[in-house]
Amino acid sequence: MKNLTLDEACEFLKRRNNFLILTHTLPDGDTVGSAAALCLGLQRIGKTAWLYNNTGIIKKMRPYTDHLIAPEGYVYETVVSVDIADAKLFPSGFSGTPELAIDHHPMNTGFADMTLLDCKKASCGEIVLQIIKRLTGGITKEEADPLYIAVTTDTGCFRYANTTSETLHAAAELLDAGADSARITKAFFRTSSLARIKLEGLIFSGLKSFDDGKIVIAVITQDMMNRSGATEDDMDDIASLAGRAEGCEVAVTIREQSNGTSKVSLRTSEKVNACNVCANFGGGGHAMASGCKLKCCPDETISRLIPYIRQELYK
Amino acid sequence: MKNLTLDEACEFLKRRNNFLILTHTLPDGDTVGSAAALCLGLQRIGKTAWLYNNTGIIKKMRPYTDHLIAPEGYVYETVVSVDIADAKLFPSGFSGTPELAIDHHPMNTGFADMTLLDCKKASCGEIVLQIIKRLTGGITKEEADPLYIAVTTDTGCFRYANTTSETLHAAAELLDAGADSARITKAFFRTSSLARIKLEGLIFSGLKSFDDGKIVIAVITQDMMNRSGATEDDMDDIASLAGRAEGCEVAVTIREQSNGTSKVSLRTSEKVNACNVCANFGGGGHAMASGCKLKCCPDETISRLIPYIRQELYK
Repeated sequence: MKNLTLDEACEFLKRRNNFLILTHTLPDGDTVGSAAALCLGLQRIGKTAWLYNNTGIIKKMRPYTDHLIAPEGYVYETVVSVDIADAKLFPSGFSGTPELAIDHHPMNTGFADMTLLDCKKASCGEIVLQIIKRLTGGITKEEADPLYIAVTTDTGCFRYANTTSETLHAAAELLDAGADSARITKAFFRTSSLARIKLEGLIFSGLKSFDDGKIVIAVITQDMMNRSGATEDDMDDIASLAGRAEGCEVAVTIREQSNGTSKVSLRTSEKVNACNVCANFGGGGHAMASGCKLKCCPDETISRLIPYIRQELYK
Repeated sequence: MKNLTLDEACEFLKRRNNFLILTHTLPDGDTVGSAAALCLGLQRIGKTAWLYNNTGIIKKMRPYTDHLIAPEGYVYETVVSVDIADAKLFPSGFSGTPELAIDHHPMNTGFADMTLLDCKKASCGEIVLQIIKRLTGGITKEEADPLYIAVTTDTGCFRYANTTSETLHAAAELLDAGADSARITKAFFRTSSLARIKLEGLIFSGLKSFDDGKIVIAVITQDMMNRSGATEDDMDDIASLAGRAEGCEVAVTIREQSNGTSKVSLRTSEKVNACNVCANFGGGGHAMASGCKLKCCPDETISRLIPYIRQELYK
């Protein structure tokens, strides 16, 4: 694996042709928005470029990708991945090794032949913005729209702690290029399906709080899914809801599975190690976001989890 | 009333002294953040400047204002209002005429002797940022924090349609000056009291949808207030919740009053005139946000409103 500079990556893209652009599994706005914009930028300098047909692309993103999906039988020469940190995250059906990976994840495993990695960027979209500007001298509205989705997705529309002045300057540049901020923020951040809203209603009404609000637990039962009419399409970032409570240090989300077992997601403040808690149940993840599965109902899951959470909380 | 340019307003501020800075009633982050920053900027160029003691300032804002409130008996010479559009919005206890009004509301009535009005700015904070830069040559972290609150408050943290590239550039400048974006967005946009979250749960669970989701109605009863433990402190922007439903053209929020009557808030898309609907019940407001009061319970209020809403919706 070789690390490239921005200039080297652009030289590589100028030299090659017949691109296939790869997005990650369970694709989010950053991977899809970055891929769509890169594809358009490459086409604009006369290259043949298409997106890998990632079947996981959600409905809201499809207007930005449908016309860019590789036709069947497309013979590509150069695979470029965007926002993919690990070969495990390749989209369903793809095997092979990308020649170039464009990414911003510190844990990028170096799976590609060459990597353009910039971990200081809040989103992969900001790297792609720089690439397109170098390749073409500017950015079009068609590229600015998906890039605005990329930048806002990875920063919670500028609400997360990863938002820097560079992020905001990049976003301003995209608006100057014609990105339709009003339409994008409405579709992605200001509206939800009625099913999702009703499910949130049920979750919030049933929120459980322990230890003066330091531990907050959200339970999502099968019955709540049925009553709200929510499907997997409506579950985007659902594990973040419990953490909205002021003073919460440990936010627990427990999803009852159809077989009666429980899937647990833990989000914690920097004071509490989520991974250590989940390790007691054979799970894991990151220090501030981890998961595990328990073969019991949500109520019993709560009783079993709480002692281990307290162990970490009062360490 | 005389309209001033930015330069003229700065000259006026440099010429005068002993300032009292006025915020509007039911103060939001824009009026309070702008006032705090302007006060600090004026003090930094050697002026005596204090904030009017607006008792409505909410708890979250007080760390930015407590040390700037005018001491009792302060003899001021120059009153400057920020983000106030109308003399009706003066804070409780104030009477008099400001010499200078700094504002961004198109409907500013010209109540002050002189007005610096810039309606293209999404927030008053962006105007104050320009003023402080002209007066002092730069901006401090202590000024950048309340201005970041001002800018984010009036744009829903960059989610509303009023967000422009200029807004984002201004916000980037504030981050460069040291504004603590992570802390501010967490306190103002990513966390809520448990009572507020529980109230949202009850509201969302009871959401009523008519005409294929074009009309969405949220009812807030006295019983829901009691069950959630929510107080007036928890009601910030509550009328925006119903409008979160995809496809909603008319979002209605009905608050049951302690005497059993109903207070109605209507938020509409540009297709529907909210003011026309509310005028039927002696209310009014703006084309996309209006209100009225009905002397009946929420259920009856719904029955009475719906025909008038449909009249506007299918016009």
